[in-house]
Amino acid sequence: MLKLFYTPGTCSLASHIALEETGIDYSAVPVDFSKAEQTKPDYLAVNPKGRVPALVTDRGTITETPAILTYIAQSVPQARLAPLDDAFEFARIQSFLSYLCSTVHVAHAHGRRGSRWADDPAAHEAMRAKVASNMTDCFELIETTMFAGPFVTGETYSIADPYLFTIAGWLEPDGVDPARFPKIVDHRNRMTQRPAVARVLAFLKD
Amino acid sequence: MLKLFYTPGTCSLASHIALEETGIDYSAVPVDFSKAEQTKPDYLAVNPKGRVPALVTDRGTITETPAILTYIAQSVPQARLAPLDDAFEFARIQSFLSYLCSTVHVAHAHGRRGSRWADDPAAHEAMRAKVASNMTDCFELIETTMFAGPFVTGETYSIADPYLFTIAGWLEPDGVDPARFPKIVDHRNRMTQRPAVARVLAFLKD
Repeated sequence: MLKLFYTPGTCSLASHIALEETGIDYSAVPVDFSKAEQTKPDYLAVNPKGRVPALVTDRGTITETPAILTYIAQSVPQARLAPLDDAFEFARIQSFLSYLCSTVHVAHAHGRRGSRWADDPAAHEAMRAKVASNMTDCFELIETTMFAGPFVTGETYSIADPYLFTIAGWLEPDGVDPARFPKIVDHRNRMTQRPAVARVLAFLKD
Repeated sequence: MLKLFYTPGTCSLASHIALEETGIDYSAVPVDFSKAEQTKPDYLAVNPKGRVPALVTDRGTITETPAILTYIAQSVPQARLAPLDDAFEFARIQSFLSYLCSTVHVAHAHGRRGSRWADDPAAHEAMRAKVASNMTDCFELIETTMFAGPFVTGETYSIADPYLFTIAGWLEPDGVDPARFPKIVDHRNRMTQRPAVARVLAFLKD
């Protein structure tokens, strides 16, 4: 059985929703950042990077959200979470996942994790000051250019949707008014009405 | 025919090598950063993100290195650049690509592109000061944990190899002594001996 290591409030939500969408059995194991569990030997044995999510399979552990999402889509093909037989459409989804992980998530992380990239507290403050405008630029590009609608790549729901939903949930904490992005807000609202999404959000609240 | 937009010295090298490895016809179009071509309307019509690489196909344009590499592997299956029929092995490659784009490339970018994440020149200097140690940490993890050898994921060459080769070429400019990472240096040396890699490097020198 698949086992997902997750932390509420992080990008592990995307993988959690994708797993729930498949309908397969899995277990979800919390990693408590408030106790720095991600830095302890028990968790580093699971994921030497000290990050969530991590997906434990019977063949080994997968890390990095795009890889976990892709694995879920490919290993449970009947869930139809990606166009597995169309290299171009599959690449469109991979491109979206890559943009979220390498640009949007990174823009967000400069608000809270500036110590990854500089040691000077004044530099951390300078990074925090630019988060809202960077997240605005990213979501402007998504809203106007990348988001096809009604789902990320068009008519069909895919692994790109829970990932967008997850990161779009960071707009308010990052000081961005989501009302600037009506398509993203509408997508976010429709996502919360999906039974699988509602089940995961309820589970995380308990 | 596929058309790759590239700039020497950037991560577009990975996609360039992967295309060359397939043996298919493609064209390579330079984007001159010294003339800021990536910010001009002609190129923004190709890639609104204003970055390289971009791969133009007869169905549309693909951006983001992991997506381009995956597309090349999937659309030219006879080149055997990824384990397309094994979801777990495929995920291992996706995980490596994601780590390179979202963590290692980002660590490197703080040396030259600090203005993406802060407006204060002192913050850029603080970011530059941490690049060597961050790149060291990343390659320490790759050398000791992620790199299976002789290729990234083991016995079989894949799209992960030209991407690692590309980013490992940034160690010296980032102030890191590659001798700390004997497996990576050996991989880099073996890569330059591959005919496809040699052809691309020669093309870029012309």
